[in-house]
Amino acid sequence: MSLDTILARIDDDLPEALERLMTLLRIPSISTDPAYKKDCLSAAEWVVADLASIGVDAEVRPTTGHPMVVGHVGEGAPHLLFYGHYDVQPVDPLNLWKRDPFDPAIEDTPNGKVIRGRGANDDKGQFMTFVEACRAWKAVTGTWPCKVTFFFEGEEECGSPSLVPFLKENADELSKPDIALISDTSLFDRETPGITTMLRGLLGEELIITGPDRDLHSGAYGGAAMNPARVLAKTIASLHDDTGRVTVPGFYDGVPEIKPNIMAQWEALGFDAEGFLGDVGLSVPAGEKGRSVLEMIWSRPTCEVNGMQSGYNGDGFKTVLPSIARTKISFRLVGTQDPAKIRKDFRAMVQAQMPADCEVEFIDHGCSPASVMRTDDPSFEKAREALSQEFPKAAAFIGSGGSIPIAGHFQDILDIDTMLIGFGLEDDGLHSPNEKYDVRSFHKGIRSWARILDRLTS
Amino acid sequence: MSLDTILARIDDDLPEALERLMTLLRIPSISTDPAYKKDCLSAAEWVVADLASIGVDAEVRPTTGHPMVVGHVGEGAPHLLFYGHYDVQPVDPLNLWKRDPFDPAIEDTPNGKVIRGRGANDDKGQFMTFVEACRAWKAVTGTWPCKVTFFFEGEEECGSPSLVPFLKENADELSKPDIALISDTSLFDRETPGITTMLRGLLGEELIITGPDRDLHSGAYGGAAMNPARVLAKTIASLHDDTGRVTVPGFYDGVPEIKPNIMAQWEALGFDAEGFLGDVGLSVPAGEKGRSVLEMIWSRPTCEVNGMQSGYNGDGFKTVLPSIARTKISFRLVGTQDPAKIRKDFRAMVQAQMPADCEVEFIDHGCSPASVMRTDDPSFEKAREALSQEFPKAAAFIGSGGSIPIAGHFQDILDIDTMLIGFGLEDDGLHSPNEKYDVRSFHKGIRSWARILDRLTS
Repeated sequence: MSLDTILARIDDDLPEALERLMTLLRIPSISTDPAYKKDCLSAAEWVVADLASIGVDAEVRPTTGHPMVVGHVGEGAPHLLFYGHYDVQPVDPLNLWKRDPFDPAIEDTPNGKVIRGRGANDDKGQFMTFVEACRAWKAVTGTWPCKVTFFFEGEEECGSPSLVPFLKENADELSKPDIALISDTSLFDRETPGITTMLRGLLGEELIITGPDRDLHSGAYGGAAMNPARVLAKTIASLHDDTGRVTVPGFYDGVPEIKPNIMAQWEALGFDAEGFLGDVGLSVPAGEKGRSVLEMIWSRPTCEVNGMQSGYNGDGFKTVLPSIARTKISFRLVGTQDPAKIRKDFRAMVQAQMPADCEVEFIDHGCSPASVMRTDDPSFEKAREALSQEFPKAAAFIGSGGSIPIAGHFQDILDIDTMLIGFGLEDDGLHSPNEKYDVRSFHKGIRSWARILDRLTS
Repeated sequence: MSLDTILARIDDDLPEALERLMTLLRIPSISTDPAYKKDCLSAAEWVVADLASIGVDAEVRPTTGHPMVVGHVGEGAPHLLFYGHYDVQPVDPLNLWKRDPFDPAIEDTPNGKVIRGRGANDDKGQFMTFVEACRAWKAVTGTWPCKVTFFFEGEEECGSPSLVPFLKENADELSKPDIALISDTSLFDRETPGITTMLRGLLGEELIITGPDRDLHSGAYGGAAMNPARVLAKTIASLHDDTGRVTVPGFYDGVPEIKPNIMAQWEALGFDAEGFLGDVGLSVPAGEKGRSVLEMIWSRPTCEVNGMQSGYNGDGFKTVLPSIARTKISFRLVGTQDPAKIRKDFRAMVQAQMPADCEVEFIDHGCSPASVMRTDDPSFEKAREALSQEFPKAAAFIGSGGSIPIAGHFQDILDIDTMLIGFGLEDDGLHSPNEKYDVRSFHKGIRSWARILDRLTS
C-alpha cells in the first residue's frame, strides 16, 4: 500500500470526517464553567467511542476534575504519543455570535468553506486531523504504522489542574514514547506550515480589592468613602511604563534575546505585521517600543488585563459606590522567567499600593514556564519535510504566543520531546465569538499527518 | 379635634400602616431595568388606589416612560404639593441580600424593629409617612387641613427622563402651590431631625472604549494588540490628583466656600466622622485633603466610578484580550457648577487620552445642577418647630450629599420652594443590599407630618 492510496482515501472520506467532527462540536464541553461538567464527560466518552471504532483500546480515566482519555494501539518504532484536549472556551459574549456556538455548520466564505462553531479549531478540529489520518491509514493498510498512544484531557482551557497529578500517577503507562505530537497551533500562513518550537508560559492571577464593607449610595458617601474601583484602576495603570514595559520588579530576569540565526529566519518569513493588526481593526503595535510584532507575540513577555469588574454594569445607571473591584490578569512568560518569583513580586507590588482602607485578595489561577523545543531531534526535520510536501511553501520552525504547558510537562515528567504541528489560521477566532476552522485546514491537516506518519516510520 | 387625637390615631393604626407599606414593597418597581416596566405600572396603580381610599381624586398619568401619579384633595391655604417616587434601585449584587429584596419583613435589631426590603426607605417608606399622616387626619377630622396635591413619579432612580416634560405640559394643574414637600432625605441622627437645605447636583456619564474589533486570544495577540481595559484603567486613574481633587479642567468653577455661620452650625452638630466611616468598614476620609467629612459629602463636588467592566469575569479564567471596556461615572455637583460645561470638558479630557487604536463612545445619563433652598420662607421655621416637638433634639437645617433634582425643577418650572424633610438614617443602606427603614422612623415620620400639617395650617 502506498501513501498515495491513503491520501486518496482521506480525500474520499472527507464528508464523513466532517460529519464526525460536527457531532463532537455539538457537545458544549466548557471546562471552566461547572455548569458544563456533564457535557465534558460526554465529550470524553465520544472520543473513546470514536477511537474504539478504529480499533484503539481506549477508556475514560476519572480525575478529581474532568476525565482524561487514554488509548493504546499498534506495534513498532517509533512510539508516538498524541495529545489533544476535548474541552473548549466559554462562549460569552454570546450576543456577538452569528449562530449558536454549539450548532456548528459549514459556511462559504471569500476564503473558502469554513467549519463555524466553538472548538472548530481549538482543539476539537485540530486533534481530529490526527485521528482521521489514523482512521484512513488503518482502513487502507488494515494495520498501524507504529505504536501510538492517544492522550486527551478536558481541562486545558481552565489551567489543567488534574494533568500533572495524572501524568505522575500514570508515568509507567505513558512514558517512554519516542516523541509527543500535539496539534493545537497555527500554520504560519495559508501557504506556509510551521512547527512551533517556542511557547510562551502563562501566569494567571485574580485580584479582589475590597473598600467599604458593602455597596454605598454615592450621594450619601461620595467624596468621603474610599472607592475600590478607583484603586483598582490606579493599580492596573501602574503595571506598564510609557515604553510598554511591565513594571513588576525583576520581571525581565531570564528574558533572552533571540539568536541572530533564528531572528534571520523570522525576518525571512516576510511577516505582514500591518495585515496581522489590520485584521482585527488595529494599526499600531501596542507592545514594547523598539520590538517587532513577531517579537511581541513570540519572544517577549506580557502583562494583560483579561477581566475587570466593579459596581453596576447593567442597563441604565446606578449611583453606587462599590464595595468590591476585581480583575483577572495574565502574564505571558518567555525564556527562563520564573512564574513563582513573578507572582510573588507582582503581589508585593500590588499590596504596597493598597491604601489604608482597602484589602486585596489574590487568587492563583495557575502558571507554567515557557518551553523551548530541542529541534536537533531528527524527527523535527522529517516532519518539516513531510509538511513541505503537502503545502505550497516549505515548512518553517516558528514561535507561538500561546501557552501549551503540556509540552513542558512532557519534558519534565515523561522526559520526552514534543512536536507542535497545527493547521489553524490567525483569523480562526480562538477564544472569540464565531470561532472557525477552514475545511482546507482540516483536510490538509489530515493529509499532513498521514505524510508525517509515513515519513517517521519509513 | 385636637392634634393629640390625630397622633393617638396614628399610634393605634401603626400595624395597619405597616401592612400597607409591606404590600407596596412587594412590588419590584425597578425603573432602570426595562424588565420591570409592568411592575412599575403596578406600583403606580397601587398608589392611586391607596390615595382613592382616603378620598383623593388621583389617577395614573402615562408618559413615554414610567407613569406619573397625580391627585388632588382638600381646600384652603396653604396649598401643599407633596412629591415622592414609587420606583426603586436595582438589587444586585443579589447574593449579598440576607432575604428576597421584594419579600419585606419586620426584623428585630439591636436598634429596634426595622422594615427590611428594597424601597423600605427610598422612597416608598418615606413617602408613605405623609400619606399615612393624611389618612389619620381625614379619619379623625373627616376633612383635610388644606388643599393638597399629590405628585409621584416612577423614574427617580433612572434620571427622571419624563419629569421635566410632564411638569411643563401640566404646569397649569400643578403650579401655584405655596410650597412643595418631599420626604426622601435623612434625619441628621436618631435624636436630631433635619430639614435639608442643600442638595448636590448629579451628572451621569458612561464611557465605552473599543480597541480590537473583537475579543482576541491573549496568546496570539498579547503584547502586540491594544488592550482597552488598560486604556480605561489609565483614564480612570487620571481623573483625580494626589490631593483627591478632580482633574477635569475648570471643574471647580462655581464651587462656593460655605458661609461661616452655616459652617459654625455644622460644627455645632458634633458630627461623628469616625463613626460615619466606621459603620461601613472605613477609617480614612477619601476626599480632598484639608476638607472635613461633612464638607466632603455636603458641600464639595465629586467624581466617582459607579461601574466598570471589561473582558471575562465569570468563574475560572479566560485568556482573552477584550475588544471593549466600559465604565459608568458620576459627578456630584455643588453651588453653581454647570453640568453641561463639565460634561463637555470631561469628554474632551477623556477623548484627548485615547490612543490611535481606541475609539470612545459617550452615553449621557442625565444631569441636574445643585440646589440651595430659600430658608427665609417662614414655613421652614414652622416645620422646624413642629419637628423639634416630635424628636428629643431640636431640628437643624442640614445638607445632603444626595441629588434630588426635582427640588430644582420645582423652582425653575413651577416657581415654588421645597422643604426636604426625611426620616431615614445613614445606616439604612440606600441603593445597597439589605436596605431597611426603622419602624421608629416610619412611626415618628407619620407623627411629624401630622404636626407639620397642623403647624402650617394653624
